[in-house]
Amino acid sequence: MTIKEYLKKFEEGDERALSKIITIIENGYEESKEILEYIGKRTGKAYRIGITGPQGSGKSTLIAKLAKRLLSKFKEIGIIACDPSSPFSFGALLGDRIRMNELFLEKGIFIRSMATRGSLNGLAYKTKEVADILDAFGKEIIIIETIGVGQVEVEISNLVDTTIVVFVPESGDGIQVLKAGLTEIGDIFVVNKSDRIGADILFYELKNLIEMSYQNSKWKPPVILTQAVNNYGIEELEKEIINHYNYLIENNLLEEKRKKAVIRELVNNFENEILKILWQSERVKKLFEKVVEEVWEKKITIEEGVKKLIKEVKYVK
Amino acid sequence: MTIKEYLKKFEEGDERALSKIITIIENGYEESKEILEYIGKRTGKAYRIGITGPQGSGKSTLIAKLAKRLLSKFKEIGIIACDPSSPFSFGALLGDRIRMNELFLEKGIFIRSMATRGSLNGLAYKTKEVADILDAFGKEIIIIETIGVGQVEVEISNLVDTTIVVFVPESGDGIQVLKAGLTEIGDIFVVNKSDRIGADILFYELKNLIEMSYQNSKWKPPVILTQAVNNYGIEELEKEIINHYNYLIENNLLEEKRKKAVIRELVNNFENEILKILWQSERVKKLFEKVVEEVWEKKITIEEGVKKLIKEVKYVK
Repeated sequence: MTIKEYLKKFEEGDERALSKIITIIENGYEESKEILEYIGKRTGKAYRIGITGPQGSGKSTLIAKLAKRLLSKFKEIGIIACDPSSPFSFGALLGDRIRMNELFLEKGIFIRSMATRGSLNGLAYKTKEVADILDAFGKEIIIIETIGVGQVEVEISNLVDTTIVVFVPESGDGIQVLKAGLTEIGDIFVVNKSDRIGADILFYELKNLIEMSYQNSKWKPPVILTQAVNNYGIEELEKEIINHYNYLIENNLLEEKRKKAVIRELVNNFENEILKILWQSERVKKLFEKVVEEVWEKKITIEEGVKKLIKEVKYVK
Repeated sequence: MTIKEYLKKFEEGDERALSKIITIIENGYEESKEILEYIGKRTGKAYRIGITGPQGSGKSTLIAKLAKRLLSKFKEIGIIACDPSSPFSFGALLGDRIRMNELFLEKGIFIRSMATRGSLNGLAYKTKEVADILDAFGKEIIIIETIGVGQVEVEISNLVDTTIVVFVPESGDGIQVLKAGLTEIGDIFVVNKSDRIGADILFYELKNLIEMSYQNSKWKPPVILTQAVNNYGIEELEKEIINHYNYLIENNLLEEKRKKAVIRELVNNFENEILKILWQSERVKKLFEKVVEEVWEKKITIEEGVKKLIKEVKYVK
């Protein structure tokens, strides 16, 4: 089949074409360009939810239960799993996988797991593009699961409309991350496995931290106690997602948030392209090597080296 | 005093001048340029050790004990603390602070704590520069303490010759980070507070993980059990640092590692400067705004937008 034919099937709602198209994009095949051009003009309808947290915090189960609930309101839900240990990714125990597989059989649910190979921050390389594809395909809700290890919370929150940060009573280090200044990333905080020892302490710790961090914010992120395996707290989680959605809409923040994401992506891609062109220049490469040697031999400082390099790269403004 | 006078005092070994010069660099004052030029040509003699790990893992105590030991071999030791909760940073309990202050009184030891404000990754903004200053001042050993939250382990390992990663039995999340692919950052692994429950399990988990991750590496990082408060394991830690130093020297890797760091810094600074110049252009800014609107209104895709921008920014090669 040609790309045109795949895209036609895609438009008709064929999930195999959807899978194929995701694979092409993930692998960066030649045909990507044509697909992205097609997709790029058809996005913006889906509501995107990010769920981040440490491995073993039960994110996948939480997503499974949440997705089942959302199915009563929405017909089309897409799930992207970027956690290599996620049951969605077949990285987990068989029992877990079977539990997740039930979800695969629900009509309207499409699950895709993505490799985080090479990515230090837990976010798979083409996550944004795959979310766009699901959006263009007609998914009304897109849930993105990522393992939270520091930086990734920031990146995921740039990709989605609502960011949910999941903790478990054991995740003391997670709280450390929050204290290090990452609180302002989450829109909703969840203490999962809340029947375990330490859940109450964590709950109040989070409450306090958030109260302090969001003093000047109009949105005060709720903290929710859940036990995903028992379906406990999922109703409240859904309610808070809707609350956050309403908050964004009422304050004209949804459009603003999404426009900021477009600007961020344009800046990143533009800068990457500029630098790519720069390093392709044989003249720049040669000059760079010369400057490295001069700095290494302490003939000039790094700063002087940079100046030398800049002088040689002029723009036509 | 003028900068010239400060630098003269600095050269004479005056610690007040050293402090002043660090402050100037940290705050990015105008005089920075002159100082960095002076410093840049006087570095490369000190051996740099990075110690990273979660808050509360006892890094500061470990450093204090290690520094005391090293004092029998080296006369000049510098310590840079980037953990806001570190006793060095006065973020901790009074008892801890008093314990640390003993170290301040030792001749030859200079301790500087740095703010990690605004930095998401736990590494203070000018850490590299401050290490260079201590190096130029004549410190033979420089120990840099950072709180490890994901990405930072990578950055610290770029700055130092030997990277020590500290865990405590409670730091389950830390292990998750390792599994996510960060093992190859550490040169020495420490399980501190090794009298606590779970230390043995963590020790063997680490051993296994490292064995797998370093299969193709000539250096097999040791895992050490320590109880810093009781001075237990510090001798072994010192021994392993020396082992790692010898390994680097015997394999000609010390120079290679440091040259790579120079290249990395040159690339970063050069690219940052290029982009700074780019965004200073009024024409680029105006064109960018236009492209943002076109992408936002879905007239063109991000990719087409980037192409439009690139076309307008030409280099003289």
